[in-house]
Amino acid sequence: MPKLQLALDGDLSDGLAVLEKAHACVDIVETGTPLVFREGMRAVRVIRAAYPGLRLLSDLKIMDAGEAEADIAFDAGADIVTVLGLSGDETIQGALASAEKGDGQVMVDMMGVADPTQRAAELIALGCDLLCLHTAHDQQSRRGSPWRQLAQVRAAYPALSLAIAGGVSLSLLPQILPLHPQIVVVGSAITAAADPGLAARLIHEGIREYGDA
Amino acid sequence: MPKLQLALDGDLSDGLAVLEKAHACVDIVETGTPLVFREGMRAVRVIRAAYPGLRLLSDLKIMDAGEAEADIAFDAGADIVTVLGLSGDETIQGALASAEKGDGQVMVDMMGVADPTQRAAELIALGCDLLCLHTAHDQQSRRGSPWRQLAQVRAAYPALSLAIAGGVSLSLLPQILPLHPQIVVVGSAITAAADPGLAARLIHEGIREYGDA
Repeated sequence: MPKLQLALDGDLSDGLAVLEKAHACVDIVETGTPLVFREGMRAVRVIRAAYPGLRLLSDLKIMDAGEAEADIAFDAGADIVTVLGLSGDETIQGALASAEKGDGQVMVDMMGVADPTQRAAELIALGCDLLCLHTAHDQQSRRGSPWRQLAQVRAAYPALSLAIAGGVSLSLLPQILPLHPQIVVVGSAITAAADPGLAARLIHEGIREYGDA
Repeated sequence: MPKLQLALDGDLSDGLAVLEKAHACVDIVETGTPLVFREGMRAVRVIRAAYPGLRLLSDLKIMDAGEAEADIAFDAGADIVTVLGLSGDETIQGALASAEKGDGQVMVDMMGVADPTQRAAELIALGCDLLCLHTAHDQQSRRGSPWRQLAQVRAAYPALSLAIAGGVSLSLLPQILPLHPQIVVVGSAITAAADPGLAARLIHEGIREYGDA
């Protein structure tokens, strides 16, 4: 069953308000990059304390100093940290080393990677086991949704844990779920909905009923 | 005359302690990426309030949502924000649009860019006027210092404002200054020195005496 990851990119107070309504349908809560820029690890600590049962991902999009920067998120209480697939192999290895010191996990954000399948092979060789196919927000109008990349990488690596992010909404589930993502990342389709709780419930039920990964 | 940019990557309290000793020799103070991850924009606000006369750069290394993420730093009081040269052109344009709303400036961090001279041409066409040649911390042992990239881009664009970052120390000034960088970014060579004030003064004097850009 795919997990639903809720990305909180706004203010912390807005994020907490959404989470209050949506947390029961969420498997992983994400402190998004803009929220990290605003609040730093305070966002992680506050959400960790309020929802100790939720898995928590901090979307640092690490590009350098992999071990030291991943340490910051894990030390603050994150379960998962993101590193850019565009970063150097040493940075990936550093983030993995940080994760291995505790029970942390590294998600590699494939944003901007020209050949995701080839890079996936390199990342797997480095020890990565969770990749996120992610169309940049700024490129969604031009590049469209990331499901083509998900389809490519899924075809090459049927058993690899994959997340999909970037413009995911309820209406896209019929195109995404047949590609068997392990994690479906949703942001504004929940946070900007008139009723975030209802939006989360509908997406959660869609994933439960039709997701079979 | 090149400017000295001091990158603060540690804790905020450590950064403030270094700044107290070094600020007279510093032109631009940088809230480094790890500091932003720890403290968010509180680091920018605290340093802005303590040193209103210093230019302040926030090293967000923006990869997506260029305008919205740059807004966060400028709204907090930063003068300059960084965006990754690896990001999409829409993200660069977004960060530039954010900067143009005030007196902000965008520095493009060329970390990981395969062909900096070619990407520089694209960035200039987009309206960028400040690029940072930057060897990732994690790759300094393998790739060496970034001065070769600086030399390449300087040869192609004699009048472009260029910064250099990544392992810069006092002993490297004789190799860096002849390439006419407008900004020399120094981190641990000052922050980790036994006497950060003395380290900053020596680097500052080296730049003043031998930098002629």
